[in-house]
Amino acid sequence: MRSILLWMARNQWLRERLPKLWFARRAVRRFMPGEDADSALAAAAGFAADGIAVMFTRLGENVTKAEEGDAVAEHYLGLLDTIAERGIDGEVSVKLTQLAYDLDRDRALAHCERLAEKAAAQGRTLWVDMEGSDYVDGTLELYERLHAGHPNTGICLQAYLHRTAADIQRLLPQSPGVRLVKGAYAEKATVAYQKRPEVDANYVALAVAMLEGMRARHTVTLGLGTHDVELIEQIAEHAVALGLDRTAFEVEMLYGIRSGEQRRLAKAGYRVRDLIAYGEAWYPWYMRRLAERPANVLFALRQLLP
Amino acid sequence: MRSILLWMARNQWLRERLPKLWFARRAVRRFMPGEDADSALAAAAGFAADGIAVMFTRLGENVTKAEEGDAVAEHYLGLLDTIAERGIDGEVSVKLTQLAYDLDRDRALAHCERLAEKAAAQGRTLWVDMEGSDYVDGTLELYERLHAGHPNTGICLQAYLHRTAADIQRLLPQSPGVRLVKGAYAEKATVAYQKRPEVDANYVALAVAMLEGMRARHTVTLGLGTHDVELIEQIAEHAVALGLDRTAFEVEMLYGIRSGEQRRLAKAGYRVRDLIAYGEAWYPWYMRRLAERPANVLFALRQLLP
Repeated sequence: MRSILLWMARNQWLRERLPKLWFARRAVRRFMPGEDADSALAAAAGFAADGIAVMFTRLGENVTKAEEGDAVAEHYLGLLDTIAERGIDGEVSVKLTQLAYDLDRDRALAHCERLAEKAAAQGRTLWVDMEGSDYVDGTLELYERLHAGHPNTGICLQAYLHRTAADIQRLLPQSPGVRLVKGAYAEKATVAYQKRPEVDANYVALAVAMLEGMRARHTVTLGLGTHDVELIEQIAEHAVALGLDRTAFEVEMLYGIRSGEQRRLAKAGYRVRDLIAYGEAWYPWYMRRLAERPANVLFALRQLLP
Repeated sequence: MRSILLWMARNQWLRERLPKLWFARRAVRRFMPGEDADSALAAAAGFAADGIAVMFTRLGENVTKAEEGDAVAEHYLGLLDTIAERGIDGEVSVKLTQLAYDLDRDRALAHCERLAEKAAAQGRTLWVDMEGSDYVDGTLELYERLHAGHPNTGICLQAYLHRTAADIQRLLPQSPGVRLVKGAYAEKATVAYQKRPEVDANYVALAVAMLEGMRARHTVTLGLGTHDVELIEQIAEHAVALGLDRTAFEVEMLYGIRSGEQRRLAKAGYRVRDLIAYGEAWYPWYMRRLAERPANVLFALRQLLP
């Protein structure tokens, strides 16, 4: 099932056609307040009351023209202004291939630097997302250059990759920001754990490695990007065992998924951030979300019913 | 299934009758070369050729007379002599309640001290096993007293317990020996993870915490007591990421279980130790082994067939 959905995510023919179908548009609303930034910004207001911060990301990846990347950078600069104007406790996460990284790496870095600079002036962190495993080396390299000049930046790392344990050890001395996710792409067994229990075990172990890093006086900004509450609570126990507090990390979940748990965790003293996606290019992202959880597929199928 | 087997392990009526049945005696041979120490010592010879070390343990727990504990201590002192005479690369693991810990804690400690002293003279580690969760506080306390005077001692910790993360942090500055197992007793959800993926995740995370401890210059003797080869290999990846070698830990498996994997891992450069149990009081221990793996139950049932 997961493989089929991830194949569908990559398929160009489906990518052009499926999003136009009415039931797909209806189903995606589960995970997105709307296609435009205004819907996302409006949704953010609802979370403040529950003490939940937000993160914005405009969907889109692998753009094919440098100008598209420029426009995305401009869009995010404007978004940061709006976030500041509205007093939203929000951050921004960007995908490098949406900043035309495939075409010009230095230009993508320059975009990130401008965004990080504005975010720094506002006291925010700029997050760089991670994509398929072919991009990990390049994304890490760009992140290290970005982070050297802009400490208010973080990178997403994926627990399903065998390499991530080593990547974390490489980053720790640089006081990184790390958003740890399980990983949502179709990856080969040579690079990624294939079974969920293995990915879960690695997730906890990597989080513990970062908590150990914090205790060793590395400044680490740690976000746990998972809907797996059991894992989060397990990691919290390790944090306490290490003499840290559960606020040593932030819990990051997607808009529309386990909303009740997000509020419950926030009430229980966890720092919680809701990730709000928006934009027209939601198809591959949405298919990866379906691939993540069978429950999401059932929800999507139910949209076919009257 | 697991609960039934663990209930059977504790049931006194079954404990007195089941071991006398021919098929039970036949089935237990899968995990024990024999009931006497000689069988265990003879079996040890077979492992040396494959570069696999051994650990001996005489089965028995919760003895009800102090003299029984004294006799067990004498037995192990004699066993250490024999191990040394025969030049076996072997260590010994004792259960405190077999040393009459339930009746006299100081006397059990004194037994351990004598055993640790002889083991030290032979350059070996004495291992203290862990039992049900009611014994964890007491066993840790006794171990800390023992270890303070006898650094060549190790303790078994159980990954299914929530408290183990904190116990490890408490022990690490004392340069402990730790044999990490998943845990084989029936424990309540208040003290222990109930689901296998959670126990597995904790197992990897706890091992990583100890590997981090090693890197922080704590001297830790680490044994991974599990038949879960995937977990072992996952932990080896973390060891490498932390700049350690896979020989930073020892792999410990029971006699008769995954023998082929034991040899394969030894060939692949892991340090491997085979745990050889013997003794007449094998019933509760054997039932816990059955509870660990459905495959073991199938094996036991097959003994009923002609």
